[in-house]
This record gives sequence, structure tokens and C-alpha cells, in this order.
Amino acid sequence: MPVTEFDIIRRYFERLPSPREPVLKGIGDDAALIGSRADDDLVIAIDSLVEAVHFPPGTPAFDIGYKALAVNLSDMAAMGAEPVWFTLALTLPDADEAWLSEFSRGLFELADASGVSLVGGDTTRGPLTVTVQIGGYVPHGQALLRDGARPGDLVYVSGTLGDAVLGLKLLQYDPSGLLQEYPELRARLNRPQARLREGQALRGLARCAIDISDGLLADLSHLFDVGQCGAMVQLDQIPVSTAAQAVLAQYPSWRSLIWQGGDDYELCFCIAPQKQAELEELMASDNLHFTRIGCIEAEPGLRCTDANGSHMDCQAHGYTHFREQE
Amino acid sequence: MPVTEFDIIRRYFERLPSPREPVLKGIGDDAALIGSRADDDLVIAIDSLVEAVHFPPGTPAFDIGYKALAVNLSDMAAMGAEPVWFTLALTLPDADEAWLSEFSRGLFELADASGVSLVGGDTTRGPLTVTVQIGGYVPHGQALLRDGARPGDLVYVSGTLGDAVLGLKLLQYDPSGLLQEYPELRARLNRPQARLREGQALRGLARCAIDISDGLLADLSHLFDVGQCGAMVQLDQIPVSTAAQAVLAQYPSWRSLIWQGGDDYELCFCIAPQKQAELEELMASDNLHFTRIGCIEAEPGLRCTDANGSHMDCQAHGYTHFREQE
Repeated sequence: MPVTEFDIIRRYFERLPSPREPVLKGIGDDAALIGSRADDDLVIAIDSLVEAVHFPPGTPAFDIGYKALAVNLSDMAAMGAEPVWFTLALTLPDADEAWLSEFSRGLFELADASGVSLVGGDTTRGPLTVTVQIGGYVPHGQALLRDGARPGDLVYVSGTLGDAVLGLKLLQYDPSGLLQEYPELRARLNRPQARLREGQALRGLARCAIDISDGLLADLSHLFDVGQCGAMVQLDQIPVSTAAQAVLAQYPSWRSLIWQGGDDYELCFCIAPQKQAELEELMASDNLHFTRIGCIEAEPGLRCTDANGSHMDCQAHGYTHFREQE
Repeated sequence: MPVTEFDIIRRYFERLPSPREPVLKGIGDDAALIGSRADDDLVIAIDSLVEAVHFPPGTPAFDIGYKALAVNLSDMAAMGAEPVWFTLALTLPDADEAWLSEFSRGLFELADASGVSLVGGDTTRGPLTVTVQIGGYVPHGQALLRDGARPGDLVYVSGTLGDAVLGLKLLQYDPSGLLQEYPELRARLNRPQARLREGQALRGLARCAIDISDGLLADLSHLFDVGQCGAMVQLDQIPVSTAAQAVLAQYPSWRSLIWQGGDDYELCFCIAPQKQAELEELMASDNLHFTRIGCIEAEPGLRCTDANGSHMDCQAHGYTHFREQE
């Protein structure tokens, strides 16, 4: 029996009951219809995952579905936005029903947990590529943008950094079975948690924000490049999980991956120094985890110090596509 | 010198001056910001073009950029919507600057002509795939949906059908040089014109509408499948261009491509019989071209007649991905 594009949509992506408000018309027409929100700005982001570029071949289909949505939710978090709907453009080498079933299960598990509705999509034949575009809302004028950093601002990150990149390293080389011992590393690689609650809480408080997908230093650079200033980062202050500490104890040479790796999907943001007390109150009242790792300085460029105050060479290069082979 | 994702965005896709209203923040942040429109519904569509599936290898980069946006504009037309912004997810085998320059020129030529702004995107490395997601607005409750057809409704199409598919056939086999003689056939294949003006004019007049991308009969079926009725189509009434007539005079066996081919990006819609006079007035006053080709009937299924009233076998199969080889 032929498996058509419509069969795929019907079987795996068209869900009853009808999509929740404000989605008026979801999948199944030429386009989706979404009710307006007069006092909010619309926030739109798009991110693709390509096999062998963004995830290793052999990644479980469930995790690919999950992560494709997660990285887009993270963009909403970085804007302080509330995600509402998303579309999916799926390019598949073939219509493997077991794969599709797992993929859609992963996608919808996170969609349901996050309260977002799939409103449209397109399936095409070709090498595995997953593109999610997401839409959400933020009260007018309150979005967290990348520009705005000023000398003297304090630089914070949410959560812990490096777990995902260490998980990826261990997938390639793990003679001691650390991945078995610390399954959370693989989970952070394959099922990142967007910091939506954190982003929304930072509205009106953070001066600027970005999510860390290409590595802390690379992404932080986008905050101060925009403002034409620089930053000082205390590498020893970067928050690291217990699992990551255990991995680094065994492989100390991997340490720079903490700030040069990627796939963290934590937030990096700046606040004015006089807002520090307010931020600390928020952390306590809302049980949010932010760590101060440095500050913005007038001098352009990036400077890093380590535990003993020593200066470190820290290039801001993160993961970039199309980079020439090194 | 390395060519990074950021270099590509800066060189080919980030345009000054700032995006026009209602786009508040375009490319360059974690997400785009767009001002709300209180009285309108938001309309969202997404479509991918994959090399060797949606366009032949060797298609000029300009045309790929143009067509990737055009097919999405056509979805807006089919909803009666006004397109406003779009995002681009571009997967490229390599960063070929000549290709990118031509691609972005084609994309922006149509974007400018249509008044839509590029607000975000993602570039990744991989086999050539172009995904455009488009957003627009339609006054609340006035979108042209696919459902609504009732027995007795008249079925119309805009423009002429078959030019694109005949252009594609001639790219493969053209000993007489017909493509030289009729360059408009290639233009309709590579640079389709979305029927935005037509779609907006049909608000409140058409009962339902769809754009013809998979072939007339396949797409028309989506209109009556939804309503669980059927349709009668007069094949000899389907409007055909002078160029297409010349091609069919030479290759009569290609005739069924007119209703089974695809890539027309014309509108197919139904109106109540009592609205026919109003439609004809609209056509005259606004210089719009619609042709009546059949009607909706209570009996499920599709029936076709030809010039002499003879019944024709007409399967509704259009272009479907993942169809087993025939």
C-alpha cells in the first residue's frame, strides 16, 4: 500500500481533539489560523536539525523529535516568550513507520509538557532533516533581546554547563562506562530542557539574554559584540554538574569544552549591578538557579580568568557550520 | 578565510534598512518580533523544496530562491491572506558564494515585489533543502478554508493550468525547441506567481479554496473529501494558455498532465450558484481571470466529462511523495 504524504500526516501528526486556543485551525488546510493577542508581540524562531551535523547517526527517533522542538523552545526562553504553536518540516529518506512513530512520540511528549500545538507541516523525501518553526508571545516591549549590555553589567548563566558536550564525547570514547554511571549526560544531550520559566521571570530584569547553543563564550560574544564592549569571564565560576565534575576528574583535558562546547540550552544574560538584589530575591522566591560568571567591560574583547586569578587564553569560537577543517 | 553561518547571514540575508512595520525585530536575535494586529487572525504556512524532488538538479539558484517563497505565498493566497513576513531554513552542501548570491537575489526580488520581510532563518550543512515558513493576516473569520463545499456549488480555477508541468516535460524532451519558442513555460515552472490578489478578492465570496500544487484533480479532491460529497469536472473547460495549446498540438498524449500535473499555483475554489453574478462583476471590475470548470455534486467521488460530453476516466492521483514506484 502506498504511503503518501497525507497518510504520514494523518497517522502521526494530526491529533484530535482540535488544537487548543488560540489555534483556530491546525493541520489540514493550506495554512494554520491563529487568533490574535492584542497586547502581545509575536515571537518567531526557526531551527533545523540535520543528521550527522546536529545529532549523531543512530540517535533514537524519540530523542530527535524531542530535541527538534526543545532547541526552538529554548529560543522562546531566550526572548522571555511564552511558546504557543509550532510547525514541522520533515525531510525523510523513506517513510519508516517505526521511526515516525517514535519521532512523533518524542515530539508530542515535549509539546504536551510545554503546552504548544503543532499547527502545520510539510513532509518531503530526502536526507533526514528536521526543521521546527515556533511562535509565541511576549507582552509588547518586554522581549529579552541580545543588545543592551553595558560596562559594569553582571553576566549570569542558568543551570549548569557542559553536560551535553561531555555526553557527546563519552558517546565517542568511554572505556570506563561513565555514560552508564551518569545517564543524565546523555539526557542533556538528547533531551535538553528549555529554560522557559527562567526566561519569562527575567522580563524587565535582564538587560539582554541569549541561549547557549554554540558554547558559552561564542554566545556571550553575541551579547557584547552588539554593544561594542567586552566581557570578563571567571572560568572557575561556571556552574558544572556533579556528573560533569566526575567526567572532568577522569579527563581533565576536556575542561575547556565546558565553555567552548555547545548544546547547553541554558540562558546567558546581563543585569545592571543595582538589580542584583532583585535577581537574588527572584531566585529564592521562584526556586531559579542562576550563577554569576563575570561582567561586561568597556574594553572590547573577551578576557578569562581562572581559579587563582590567572589569565587564560579563551577564544570565543564555538560550533560554526561551514568552518574549514582545522 | 572560514565562512561561518554568521558570515552567510550577514552577507546574503541581513538587509538594511530595518524591516518595515509590523516587524519590530528581524534577523539577528534568538527570534523575531512582530507587532500584533488585534482584528486579524494570524495565518501560518510552511513548505520545503528539496533538490531532485521539487526541482531538477541544475535549476538556477535565482529560481530556487524565487520559487521557495512563491509556493508559500500561494498558500497565503489560498487562505485569502495578506503575507507579511517569512523565515528561511536553508540546508546547503557547501557555502558556494556564487550560488548564495543568486539564491538570495531571487528570494528578495519576489519578497520585495510581494511586500514581505525575511525575519529569521537557520543555515545548516547538508543536502540542498529550502524551507520557507510564511506568516500573514486575514480579517478575523474571513479566511478561505478547504471545507465548506456543498452540492450545487460551482467550481472555478484562476489563470491557466498545465504550463509548469509542460515546461518540466520539455526540459526532459524537446527535440523541436518548444521551450525556446515559449519561454513562459519555463518561467511558470521556476517562477510561479501566487494569486494573492485573487485570494483576497474572494474573501466572503468563495465557500472554500485551495491552491493547485499537486494537480487540479488531486487538489480539488481535498475540497470535496472534506465535505463528503463529489465533483463533476468538464475537462474541456479547463483554461489552457496559448503556449500549452501549441505544446499539446505537438504532443497530444501529454494532455492529461493539464489536470494531473502540478506546480500550477492557481486557485481552485467553490462558490454558491447564487453568487455567480457577483463573481462575474468582480472579475470585470478587478480584472481577475476565473474559469468555471465544473460543480460539486452530492454523490461522492470525481466524474469527468470531455468536449463531446463523453465520460472520461479521471483518477485524482496527483504528485505524492513516498508513493511506491509505479
